[in-house]
Amino acid sequence: MKTTEGSQTNNQELVSALLSFLTDEQVSINETILDLHSKDESYHKGSHPDIVVYPKNASEVSQIIQKAGEFQTPIIPFGVGSSLEGHVIPYKKGITMNFTEMNRILEVKEEDFLVKVQPGVTRSQLNKELKKYGLFFPVDPGADATLGGMAATNASGTTSVKYGVMRDQVLDLEVVLANGEIIHTGSLAAKSSSGYHLNGLFVGSEGTLGCFTELTLKVYGIPEFQMAGRATFPTIDDAVGAVVGILQAGIPIGRVELVDEASINQVNLFSETNYEIKPTLFLEFHGNEAGLQQDVEFMREIVADFHCQDITFETDTAARNLLWDARHNLAYAYVHGYPGKKMMVTDVCVPISELAGAVTYARKCLDEINLIGGLTGHVGDGNFHSLVMIDLNNEEEVNKAKHFNEQLVLYALEKGGTCTGEHGVGVGKMKYQEQEHGKALEVMRNIKNVLDPNHILNPNKVIPFNSEGES
Amino acid sequence: MKTTEGSQTNNQELVSALLSFLTDEQVSINETILDLHSKDESYHKGSHPDIVVYPKNASEVSQIIQKAGEFQTPIIPFGVGSSLEGHVIPYKKGITMNFTEMNRILEVKEEDFLVKVQPGVTRSQLNKELKKYGLFFPVDPGADATLGGMAATNASGTTSVKYGVMRDQVLDLEVVLANGEIIHTGSLAAKSSSGYHLNGLFVGSEGTLGCFTELTLKVYGIPEFQMAGRATFPTIDDAVGAVVGILQAGIPIGRVELVDEASINQVNLFSETNYEIKPTLFLEFHGNEAGLQQDVEFMREIVADFHCQDITFETDTAARNLLWDARHNLAYAYVHGYPGKKMMVTDVCVPISELAGAVTYARKCLDEINLIGGLTGHVGDGNFHSLVMIDLNNEEEVNKAKHFNEQLVLYALEKGGTCTGEHGVGVGKMKYQEQEHGKALEVMRNIKNVLDPNHILNPNKVIPFNSEGES
Repeated sequence: MKTTEGSQTNNQELVSALLSFLTDEQVSINETILDLHSKDESYHKGSHPDIVVYPKNASEVSQIIQKAGEFQTPIIPFGVGSSLEGHVIPYKKGITMNFTEMNRILEVKEEDFLVKVQPGVTRSQLNKELKKYGLFFPVDPGADATLGGMAATNASGTTSVKYGVMRDQVLDLEVVLANGEIIHTGSLAAKSSSGYHLNGLFVGSEGTLGCFTELTLKVYGIPEFQMAGRATFPTIDDAVGAVVGILQAGIPIGRVELVDEASINQVNLFSETNYEIKPTLFLEFHGNEAGLQQDVEFMREIVADFHCQDITFETDTAARNLLWDARHNLAYAYVHGYPGKKMMVTDVCVPISELAGAVTYARKCLDEINLIGGLTGHVGDGNFHSLVMIDLNNEEEVNKAKHFNEQLVLYALEKGGTCTGEHGVGVGKMKYQEQEHGKALEVMRNIKNVLDPNHILNPNKVIPFNSEGES
Repeated sequence: MKTTEGSQTNNQELVSALLSFLTDEQVSINETILDLHSKDESYHKGSHPDIVVYPKNASEVSQIIQKAGEFQTPIIPFGVGSSLEGHVIPYKKGITMNFTEMNRILEVKEEDFLVKVQPGVTRSQLNKELKKYGLFFPVDPGADATLGGMAATNASGTTSVKYGVMRDQVLDLEVVLANGEIIHTGSLAAKSSSGYHLNGLFVGSEGTLGCFTELTLKVYGIPEFQMAGRATFPTIDDAVGAVVGILQAGIPIGRVELVDEASINQVNLFSETNYEIKPTLFLEFHGNEAGLQQDVEFMREIVADFHCQDITFETDTAARNLLWDARHNLAYAYVHGYPGKKMMVTDVCVPISELAGAVTYARKCLDEINLIGGLTGHVGDGNFHSLVMIDLNNEEEVNKAKHFNEQLVLYALEKGGTCTGEHGVGVGKMKYQEQEHGKALEVMRNIKNVLDPNHILNPNKVIPFNSEGES
């Protein structure tokens, strides 16, 4: 067993119980290991688990959860810790279950466009394997997250405008429930009207209803032809209007990202580039060559109606990457431009007709609090992020950032949107659940209570009971 | 109040309670009305409700459900009665809630590609309105069902290979729960990771968890250019292989339907046409002209690899309809070819790699029982139907058809598929829920029990308790 002198021995009985079916290497109370599992990539403060375990299969996961039930101690599933709202932070301590050892791609069902994986497989690991078959997995949240974690948060990203979010890709999950039972939530059929839709319920449940031990996911043929585009506009309104026009024309966008002036400026500062400091759209199209050439001509007309000042298209891989350079380097330009500061990322999603207003409002609020930051958006979905740089030791900065985050959430809810488009609730968005869901929150509480009556699964996350909220 | 002499007066107290907030026109115990609400389009035997009500808004729906709760009597939501597994048949009697009076299109949010409708709006009614905006709603189950009913069964049909199923279109539902509470299950945001996914849970719940009073649905721009195709193959294996090849090539299919020899023959007999009696694929493609022309060339190569004997494409509307004529007339050719007989429709869905085997097996079983029938499939999804003509008064025929249905279900489950791809469980597929879902069925039972503890919402449907099953 991995341990260090000075580690707490309060949990010795639980450790012994775990060691009755796990090896020494699978159970750790080593301080460094506990520290690695005390935080995620968010600005939320950390907290150590009591124990970290490394299960190798569903049967071990089941036994661990049963032991946690006997000891009335929390279970927190953990992928690579790239969550952004404190999802994996063990505020109530307990056992963090690290899925590193369950990282096998079990089967590529080429003809069915399906893949079966363990939860610890990362996105890039999967795509490397799929490439051999001419296939790819489209969901791209930026981080090289595990697929288990991506399913737990219903992650999405730049490609969801075309391929959908994580929930759209899940055909079946093997899930270990709070009582240790192992269930399957779906089948291998591409569609079904049989029974209640447990796939959808468990995806996005952030470890609060069960732990995933196997995922069956849809995969796609690598598009024959890809084209990238970059277009600048005088205003954000124009840029968003152009996107709506393109969508209404039925042009199949693969990705469409908005980057604001401040963020282009930050990239220029950091990368010593000279991009025009204008609201910019980064576009990608997947299809065949003749079709995309016709689409390009149509698009030039549409963006001209929205006062586009410059539009460029590229087709070969290197030129496409260069064209998207400013978008790719955006987070990097902020994070590495301000050493010592941490990035807080907002995540509201609004109806697309409200997007221009929401982005303008966000820019105004960000200017008012006078913190460094910029905006980028998955414009086709109405989801955008503010990247705000804060010093976590500076209480005033942290509070300003939290206030700003709240301003955006309240604005989005007012417009019929959601407090989180793709990052999930974790602890950071719990306090908005009541306002967003109203009486539906009681339905969610009932579901949590009936599936995990003792609240051992990632407790105090997602669904607030009593007056729980942000840490 | 609509009534007839001789109608039962056992429910007089409940009727009086309903009339305390509904008008006479909204409450009926007229025998003809009860009879119209005693059955659906399936082969399942009918049963009269006690009362039929016609609510006009969510508040009335809530009050009706609360009254049903007080009187411990079932509530059965009813659209147009086009369900195929006995979903709306009131086997436990009670109140059938007919949504005819809630059939308004409340809002077309053009820029957001959303529409807000009441549950009684039919598919064709919606598409007629959307056409004015250059938009359309893609889910097409064949029948001109209500959108409330389509959401309740997670309906799909010929276009789901491109646009997804009903569940994929629902952004928000207004739902009245068993306790009369009115909740919203989603928001107007195109995506969200906030809270549990109640949209997905309520879609497909077949009236057993709540009654829908409003739906917010995705809509799409009418494609710039459409092309239809028809191709014949020597074997079903070849036809299915060609579909997999087209999908793997990433060619964006709008619809792809397989029709077997027996069904082509039936169309020829009925319509006095002369289609070649071969396994036939009916295809439809949505995109731009240049792109589809390039796709056609590619497709000709792919289908040639699968021994295609004849392939034709058409682009103008009349020619496209003519090309698809045999597919469109299929059900009609059976139903009107055998007056006095009723059509039983099977509905399994298997992984696409298992589809050719499943269709071949179905054909063999159908030949063995020696009933009239044919096969048609939504091949891109692995979902296919056997259309079997039976005389409901001939017990032997009915039993043979039920046995055949069961053979297909067991085959599909064996291959990792589902007992129902798009029709839903109703009463007809209840007895397969245990085998399909295993221990997950207990999770479904827990959800039903916690959301509808007295089982007043469409009782004895979808989720079997004890040894409930087919009527």
